[in-house]
Amino acid sequence: MARAHNFCSGPCILPTAVLDELAAELPDFGDSGMSLIEMSHRDPVYDRVHHETLDRLRRLCHVPDDVDVLLLQGGATLQFAMVAMNLLVDDRPGVYSVSGSWGKKALADAAKIGRTAVAWDGADGGFTAMPTADQLDLPSDARYLHVTSNETIGGIRIPEFYDVDVPQVIDMSSDYLTRAIPWDAVDVVYGGAQKNLGPAGLAVVFVRRSVLDEIPDTVPSYLSYATHAGADSLANTPPVFAIWATGKVLAWIEDQGGVPAMEKRAADRSAMIYRAIDGSEGFYRNPVAVADRSHTNIVFRLATEDLEAAFLAEAGEAGLVNLKGHRSVGGIRASVYNALPDESVQVLVEHMASFAAANS
Amino acid sequence: MARAHNFCSGPCILPTAVLDELAAELPDFGDSGMSLIEMSHRDPVYDRVHHETLDRLRRLCHVPDDVDVLLLQGGATLQFAMVAMNLLVDDRPGVYSVSGSWGKKALADAAKIGRTAVAWDGADGGFTAMPTADQLDLPSDARYLHVTSNETIGGIRIPEFYDVDVPQVIDMSSDYLTRAIPWDAVDVVYGGAQKNLGPAGLAVVFVRRSVLDEIPDTVPSYLSYATHAGADSLANTPPVFAIWATGKVLAWIEDQGGVPAMEKRAADRSAMIYRAIDGSEGFYRNPVAVADRSHTNIVFRLATEDLEAAFLAEAGEAGLVNLKGHRSVGGIRASVYNALPDESVQVLVEHMASFAAANS
Repeated sequence: MARAHNFCSGPCILPTAVLDELAAELPDFGDSGMSLIEMSHRDPVYDRVHHETLDRLRRLCHVPDDVDVLLLQGGATLQFAMVAMNLLVDDRPGVYSVSGSWGKKALADAAKIGRTAVAWDGADGGFTAMPTADQLDLPSDARYLHVTSNETIGGIRIPEFYDVDVPQVIDMSSDYLTRAIPWDAVDVVYGGAQKNLGPAGLAVVFVRRSVLDEIPDTVPSYLSYATHAGADSLANTPPVFAIWATGKVLAWIEDQGGVPAMEKRAADRSAMIYRAIDGSEGFYRNPVAVADRSHTNIVFRLATEDLEAAFLAEAGEAGLVNLKGHRSVGGIRASVYNALPDESVQVLVEHMASFAAANS
Repeated sequence: MARAHNFCSGPCILPTAVLDELAAELPDFGDSGMSLIEMSHRDPVYDRVHHETLDRLRRLCHVPDDVDVLLLQGGATLQFAMVAMNLLVDDRPGVYSVSGSWGKKALADAAKIGRTAVAWDGADGGFTAMPTADQLDLPSDARYLHVTSNETIGGIRIPEFYDVDVPQVIDMSSDYLTRAIPWDAVDVVYGGAQKNLGPAGLAVVFVRRSVLDEIPDTVPSYLSYATHAGADSLANTPPVFAIWATGKVLAWIEDQGGVPAMEKRAADRSAMIYRAIDGSEGFYRNPVAVADRSHTNIVFRLATEDLEAAFLAEAGEAGLVNLKGHRSVGGIRASVYNALPDESVQVLVEHMASFAAANS
C-alpha cells in the first residue's frame, strides 16, 4: 500500500526511514541474539540507546546545564498532576492561562492538589486567540504561570513566548521541537512524544534543577521529578520501545537541520494551507486570530457539515487521511507535524483548490 | 545471530513469532498506508487492536463481570501510589505484607498518602520465605491487605493465596498469567507487563467496580482508576505499541493452552532447575523455604563470588544470558517467564551439571 498522507493530530506520522529501521532491528538488535525490547534496562546495550535519546534531546533543544531531561510515562495528562504535586509546595498559587481544552484540564488537576488561579480564560472567545502578556492576570505571589504553547483543538499558538516575572510551566505537546524553548523563562516544559517526537507511551519533561530541591518527601516515588532526575530516568523500567523509536526520530530531525529547520518547515507549510484558506474567497474559513494561528494544527470550516463530509470523503480518495476536526469542535484539521512529508501538504492544498472549484 | 537463551528478569524474552509479526506489520498495518503506531487512538483499526487486548486479558484471566481491566502507564511503581490514592479514602489503614523489595516500596508510597500498617515483615529472615495466613497481623479495620505474589529478587512466592477477611491488593508483576487470580479475595490486582505479558511501558490493572464508586474527586485525572475504567483505557493516548505487542503475546498464550498451560510450564521448568540445585550436593544453594520457592525466578548461590563469575562467563559462552542476580543480593537468578523456550531451561540445567562437575 502507498504511504498515506497522514495528517493525524496524534499519534503522529513518523519518518518512513525510522519505521523501516525499527522493523529491521526489531527481531535481533545488533546481533545480540535478542530484541532491544527483550533486554534488561540495565544492560549496557540498552543504556547506550537510552542515553543517546537523552543526549539528542539535550543537544537539539539546547538544554542548559541546570535543567534535567526526564523520560516519563502517562503522557501530558499525568504531567497535569505532577506539575502541581512537585511545584505547589507552599501557599503560592499555580496560575493558569486557559487557552483551550488542554489548559483547562491542566488547571482542573492542579486545583485538586494546591492553590490555583486563572490568569486568562479564552472560553468566551471560543478559544480562537491567545492572550497577550499584558492580558494575563498574574498575582504577585504566583508560583508559576502555566501556558499551553499550542492548542491542538483550537489550532492556536502563542506566537512569542511571554516575558513575565514568574517562572513558566509550558505544555509543548503539540509544538515540541518545532520552535526554540525560552529557557530563561521556564521551570518546567513538558509534552507527550506522540506528536512531533515519536510514538505514544512517552512524555518528555524538562525540569530546572532548582525545582528538585523543593519537592516534598510526601510526593510518591513515581510522581516525584526527583526520583527520575536522580536516576537518568531509569528509576523503574522505562518504556523501552518508545524511547528507542523517539531516539531515531530525533536523529532524523538532526539530519534535517535540527529545530531551526523544523521551525521553518512548520512556518512554510502552515502558511501554504492558510494561503489556500485565505485565497478561497470564503469557501474555507479559519476562525483564529491571524497572529495566533498554529503552525502545527491548521483548522478550517466549510459552509455546511455536509460539505465538510464531502471534502473529507474526497480527500480520503486522494490518500489524504485523518483530516477530521476534533469531535468537540467539528470541521477540518490538518496537523503538519515534523515527520509529515512536504508532498502531503502539496497534495492537500491541491485537493482544497479542486474541491473549492468544483463546489463553489 | 542465534536467539539467546534469555533469562532476563524483565524486560523479558518474547515469543519469536511475536517479534517477527511485529516487524512485518510495523511499517504498514493491514494495508492502511501507515503503521499502527502512526494511527489515531480513536481510529476503528486501532480500537479493534485495543479491545482485542482487553478481551484476551478478560478471557485468559477469567475476569468476573464486576471487575474492570485497565491498561495504564508508569509500571507497577506508579501503582504503588495509585492503589493508596484510590483505596485509602477514609481512616482505615492499608496493611502490607513486606516480603521483599517490591512490597517495601509499595508500603513506602502508600505511607505518604494514607494510614498504613505492617502485617508482616520478612527483612529479618532475609526475605527467604512468605508468611502463612496466620502469621499476618491484620487489624480489624484494615481497608485492604497488600501482598506481592512473587518477589523477583528474593525468588519467593505465595504458594497459595490467602483466605482472609479483608479484600486483597495483589502485585502480580512477576507471575501474571502463570497462575489463576483468586478473584473472590481481591479488590485490585496489578503488575507491569514486561515480565510475562509483553514489552515495557504498560501496566495491567484489574479493579473491582465497587472500588470505583468510592474514589474521591480529589484524585487527579490520570491517577484515578475511575478515569480509565470509564473510558476503556482510552481517556488519554494509550501506549499503543506496548498494547499491540501484549495483545500478540496474549494470543500466543491462548494458543499454548492459556493460564493452566503456563502454570504447568512454570512449575515443571522451575522444578528442573531446583532439582539441579538440590542434586548438586551443595555446589549450588537456594536459600528459600522450599514451599515458597518461586516458579518464575529461581535464585541460587555458588561457594564464592569468583565461582559465580566463572559460572556466568561460561554460561554466556553457551548462549545463556541475563543470569546475574539482582545487584542488591548478588548470586545467580534464572527468570523462566512464559515466553522462554523449554530448550533454554534444558541448556541451563546441562550447563549447571557440567560446570559443577568441572569445578567440584
